[in-house]
Amino acid sequence: LSTGDTEGMREALADMHPAEIAVLLESLPTDQRLQAWKEVPSEQTGEVLAQVHDKVRLTLIGTMDSDELIAATENLDTDDLADLLPDMPDEVIQQLLNTMDEQNRERLETVLPYPEDSAGGLMNVDTITVRADITLDVVLRYLRRRGEIPETTDNLVVVNRTGHYLGLLPITELLTNKPDQSVAEVMQRGVEPISADTEAHEVARIFEHRDLVTAPVVDADGRLVGRITIDDVVDVIRERADHSFMGMAGLTEEEDIFAPVITSSRRRAVWLGVNLMTAFLAAWVIGLFGATIEQLVALAVLMPIVASMGGIAGSQTLTLVIRAQALGQIGASNARQLLLKELTVGFLNGLVWATVIAVVAGLWFDSVWLGAIIAIAIMINLVVAALSGTVIPLVLKKLGADPALAGGVVLTTVTDVVGFFAFLGLATLFLV
Amino acid sequence: LSTGDTEGMREALADMHPAEIAVLLESLPTDQRLQAWKEVPSEQTGEVLAQVHDKVRLTLIGTMDSDELIAATENLDTDDLADLLPDMPDEVIQQLLNTMDEQNRERLETVLPYPEDSAGGLMNVDTITVRADITLDVVLRYLRRRGEIPETTDNLVVVNRTGHYLGLLPITELLTNKPDQSVAEVMQRGVEPISADTEAHEVARIFEHRDLVTAPVVDADGRLVGRITIDDVVDVIRERADHSFMGMAGLTEEEDIFAPVITSSRRRAVWLGVNLMTAFLAAWVIGLFGATIEQLVALAVLMPIVASMGGIAGSQTLTLVIRAQALGQIGASNARQLLLKELTVGFLNGLVWATVIAVVAGLWFDSVWLGAIIAIAIMINLVVAALSGTVIPLVLKKLGADPALAGGVVLTTVTDVVGFFAFLGLATLFLV
Repeated sequence: LSTGDTEGMREALADMHPAEIAVLLESLPTDQRLQAWKEVPSEQTGEVLAQVHDKVRLTLIGTMDSDELIAATENLDTDDLADLLPDMPDEVIQQLLNTMDEQNRERLETVLPYPEDSAGGLMNVDTITVRADITLDVVLRYLRRRGEIPETTDNLVVVNRTGHYLGLLPITELLTNKPDQSVAEVMQRGVEPISADTEAHEVARIFEHRDLVTAPVVDADGRLVGRITIDDVVDVIRERADHSFMGMAGLTEEEDIFAPVITSSRRRAVWLGVNLMTAFLAAWVIGLFGATIEQLVALAVLMPIVASMGGIAGSQTLTLVIRAQALGQIGASNARQLLLKELTVGFLNGLVWATVIAVVAGLWFDSVWLGAIIAIAIMINLVVAALSGTVIPLVLKKLGADPALAGGVVLTTVTDVVGFFAFLGLATLFLV
Repeated sequence: LSTGDTEGMREALADMHPAEIAVLLESLPTDQRLQAWKEVPSEQTGEVLAQVHDKVRLTLIGTMDSDELIAATENLDTDDLADLLPDMPDEVIQQLLNTMDEQNRERLETVLPYPEDSAGGLMNVDTITVRADITLDVVLRYLRRRGEIPETTDNLVVVNRTGHYLGLLPITELLTNKPDQSVAEVMQRGVEPISADTEAHEVARIFEHRDLVTAPVVDADGRLVGRITIDDVVDVIRERADHSFMGMAGLTEEEDIFAPVITSSRRRAVWLGVNLMTAFLAAWVIGLFGATIEQLVALAVLMPIVASMGGIAGSQTLTLVIRAQALGQIGASNARQLLLKELTVGFLNGLVWATVIAVVAGLWFDSVWLGAIIAIAIMINLVVAALSGTVIPLVLKKLGADPALAGGVVLTTVTDVVGFFAFLGLATLFLV
């Protein structure tokens, strides 16, 4: 690509799936990305726009005029289109709505009010519905006349005259049962539909737990409004996992590896600034013991060890708890037992490593007392780390904050401050 | 549960799906877990065993005798059974193989040789196959006679006389095309099957990119050996994401929140030990400048700021690069540009925060020189952090090591050592 081989590029892109093209575009620096974008086959552009991250999408949309945008997007699924609309210029949105037929506009208007990260935002409105009182033979003839079944259809949805959800008719049942049976005899009635205002991560949990491929979505009155397919749920799962992973470093899951330098710098600067404040707090604690350090420089040499062991132990507990929260494994009933377990682990590891550090530090600086004091400080900090690693994410979640994003900073602030304070404080009391 | 309400427990469990029961069991402390395990309906125990993490599974298997184990597992899918077998007592494995009918034993023997994290390990062997030369009507009659279609079947697989893969027959095509057409006329020939030795994460990427629900698996000769279904792929995606997230704290994705205290302590101790060595290395660097610190205690107060800002900036780059690696977005062609971008971001953020720190530190200790020196040290460390955050994961991957696991330790070792060395070294040269 860097050699300007647009011919080869075009051929390569012609063989790729939209999601593959999206990943490729995200992995290119901006100028090459725009160059490659021009070579994407026009029938793929809409799907690709729907798949790339928000920030990359904006740069791509910026290169297209209204006609290109309309041509690219008018055949998209309603859920994808609903996600794209907010990023489009106003006149394009208007034109798109005008060129749509009645049915598609109605469908889009069903989806638009729901937030992107709810069941309503995830759903498609291409559900095939049937009535309970007809025979399978009628259903089979209807499908054959229809000629096309939407991708990833494993069930038809059974509704009553008013459009209320009654149950599912798996298409495998259509194939294995006698045609003269009625839908009512064969349908699955026990399957709970998903409410349109269910949050996306809860939808993902339901799909994972029940090994679903699709699920029907109903509004507050129990009326069928659409269906969710597994491919959209997989995206949710991937994004949530990325969110936790990236959040721990103060990044968002939409971070673009080739975002403009200024954008990246500004976004990361915020996180560095937050951490700088906590670093100054820790420095202030050290400053309190300046006189002690002046008398015994070994303290300055060893104090980062106390803080860093606390930080590591705490982040192990924190990571474990955040993951368990995401899986819904932590409630009021087991939080206390988890805390007790983590405290015990912290205490045991404290014992082991305090001993090691005491011996090394004692020999290094030829002082039994220094060894004893760093050992006690490590013990204190590892127990505090276990306490903080368990309690901080639980409290953050209760406060409505995101433990994956804020947990790490709060934790290391605690373990730094406690580590320095315990070590230097004990030294001031007993050593100098 | 803590009140010993086994009656209520039994009722609650009766309504739950195996995956939900698995999550519940994982979230219970060991004694309550074993108590709840006794109340799991016996027809669910096999599925639950297949779903829980390896370590929890071993404790559950430990409570069952051979007869219970055989009853629980004899009706499992072959891919689940293949995963369970290594954890079972030898005499149970033997008995299981003996009680199986010929066909199932053959199927199991097809799956067993493949590693758990390969396409062969993920696959089921319940594929329905058809020949290309028959009519759809024959297929329809065959399915109706068969009476049952395996869960999550969206395609039948078309094979030739020798069992070699030819293409797919989507069951929606069966429903919408005329029954007198032949399979050959309707089948999809362009779909590439997955080779049985493909790695699991590559399988996940294929499913995500192509929005698949199932995919056929072939052996090295192109002979059909099974199929992979999306529910197993979702597990792979989740586990890989967990692996990155937990790996950053030195934990494995199988970590059980209520593992016995001794087990947890021992596992985490390793990580603490590795980090202790790097902490001692940093301490040793500080020790080199003991005489300087003795003359100017402000250095001891400020030095953790230099190290920690480098650590934060580096871990942002590291996280970004590890995620991009997992998505396959980094190759030889763009690595240099990524490095250049990260170095620029590091330099810009270095300028901003070096200025802030210089002003604060200068005012605090009333020394322009101290401010200037910490500013230069921060600049150096943030650029080194950008370099390390980009290069370390690339090198680790090339060496066959896991960047998510080892990247963080190596990075903070570099940023600690460089941070302390730059700051204290410059101070020794110019300040004291």
